Amino acid sequence: MVDLNDILAAQERIKEHANRTPVMTSRTIDRLTGCKVFFKCENMQRGGAFKFRGALNTILLLNDEERSRGVVTHSSGNHAQALSLAASMLGVKATIVMPENSPKVKVNATRGYGAEIVFCKNNVESRVQTANRLVEEHGFTMIHPYNDERIIAGAGTAALELLQDHAPLDAVFAPVGGGGFLSGTSIAVKGISEDTLVIAGEPEKADDAYRSVRDGKIYPSVNPNTIADGLRTNLGDITFDIIRRHTDRIVTVSEEEILNAMRLLLERMKLVVEPSGAVSLAALLKISGDLVERRVGVLISGGNVDLDPFFRSYHE
Amino acid sequence: MVDLNDILAAQERIKEHANRTPVMTSRTIDRLTGCKVFFKCENMQRGGAFKFRGALNTILLLNDEERSRGVVTHSSGNHAQALSLAASMLGVKATIVMPENSPKVKVNATRGYGAEIVFCKNNVESRVQTANRLVEEHGFTMIHPYNDERIIAGAGTAALELLQDHAPLDAVFAPVGGGGFLSGTSIAVKGISEDTLVIAGEPEKADDAYRSVRDGKIYPSVNPNTIADGLRTNLGDITFDIIRRHTDRIVTVSEEEILNAMRLLLERMKLVVEPSGAVSLAALLKISGDLVERRVGVLISGGNVDLDPFFRSYHE
Repeated sequence: MVDLNDILAAQERIKEHANRTPVMTSRTIDRLTGCKVFFKCENMQRGGAFKFRGALNTILLLNDEERSRGVVTHSSGNHAQALSLAASMLGVKATIVMPENSPKVKVNATRGYGAEIVFCKNNVESRVQTANRLVEEHGFTMIHPYNDERIIAGAGTAALELLQDHAPLDAVFAPVGGGGFLSGTSIAVKGISEDTLVIAGEPEKADDAYRSVRDGKIYPSVNPNTIADGLRTNLGDITFDIIRRHTDRIVTVSEEEILNAMRLLLERMKLVVEPSGAVSLAALLKISGDLVERRVGVLISGGNVDLDPFFRSYHE
Repeated sequence: MVDLNDILAAQERIKEHANRTPVMTSRTIDRLTGCKVFFKCENMQRGGAFKFRGALNTILLLNDEERSRGVVTHSSGNHAQALSLAASMLGVKATIVMPENSPKVKVNATRGYGAEIVFCKNNVESRVQTANRLVEEHGFTMIHPYNDERIIAGAGTAALELLQDHAPLDAVFAPVGGGGFLSGTSIAVKGISEDTLVIAGEPEKADDAYRSVRDGKIYPSVNPNTIADGLRTNLGDITFDIIRRHTDRIVTVSEEEILNAMRLLLERMKLVVEPSGAVSLAALLKISGDLVERRVGVLISGGNVDLDPFFRSYHE
């Protein structure tokens, strides 16, 4: 079971290579929410998302034999980029299974960091089967994108830094997809300050974590056609176990609420975020009436978004 | 003549209301340039650009009679927003003359802050004539967007903060349009550290400042059809005088070089910047071979860009 000491050890392990990302504030959003909000900008992490923390922590924990076999994972994008980057930095071969409808920007970035890409169908079974087949055929070391204690410990270092810099906080918001980020966050937060609320944001169109915690069993994520492409996966047994114990609340948000939060982050705070990265703010905006005058942390998970439509407007 | 003491006084005057904007770094850009680069993020200033500093400083220096008459200015956008915001905060009526082809996002924001907008033709003469007519007809107090010592002193507080936080720097890059930002920057930089180079970036398609300094006379900006809409104006007599004395070099950059710098800022640093805001980085990228291993400051002037084409891609 991951605990605060694992997260502190991960922080020490990755600090040479990972960014201590900035924390931003906004008068506009403080006014809109009635809270004092601290945004932890994991969109500015290497590879463009918090995922680099867990990927790097995990590869650093592999032994020589595991590294020499090369690593494999399946990911909709950000874990793919993160593992590709961390592996290439440490001279480890990486192979990534990506759904065929992954955002082009994430596919290109993953390839750009040096990984080999194998495409699969756009569902969880195809991802897992394809990755397992590669493990059998080539002997690769599997690194699961979230249901892994080393990944979770790495992911928890973002909330750890936020609390080290800005405690005390009354609540911390994180998005939930597969649950790695939320698991690491909740262990870091509750380990440092038991009274701080841990609140998750989840797309209504991929609300499997909400229903799983409510009913006490893991539901699969069926046709999760949310724009928050990083949150389409379902919980794993490890993340489910952590989240049901340490997360105080899961707030589901509509697609429009996600886009509205994204607009605030891009237009008012001038931060490039991806839809998944805006879900935590969308959740805060939805329930901010419960947190008036509180000090609130909001984790922005990533910023890997396709900007071609924006740049095309300059060539018209 | 503006000096460092005026800028220090402006800093004290505006500090309650203006943001002390963050300074960001990037491993990617350090690697690309061979320098250690510090980005001063005025895109995160209130109103989305450095302009708020000068507008606020100027309104705070008006006497009661001048304030009661209301203020007027002409601006392609960022000074318009800044003056509108600063005026409304202090209960002063503002009227803004804007070229009819100003970016919609800037027009809407200016109106949103409470100013009245009067449109004019898209050239310098029309702007000036329209503003002068409003002064005559209504008795408004004219606040020039850049050729004004109070505006320049306010603009200089951005570079002042950058040096206070990250000195020593070997060079500081700023964009030049009308020259207010570059004037304030050069006075702040040279006042603190005479050996620090002040280098301007200017679009090739609006290179009137480059030619003006070279030839020792102010050229008008004729049909400046650069995407850097904030840099289409020509120098004024005050800014020309300061720039020719205190700026070490003006580097002109192509439209493609501006877009390339913008892409790095958005995609790699996750910062929303407008084309004018990327011109200083474009200049650094062009001459970074002259600054290898140096500590370099880059002023990002603003981030008010039309994001509708980007968001439309989520509704397709």
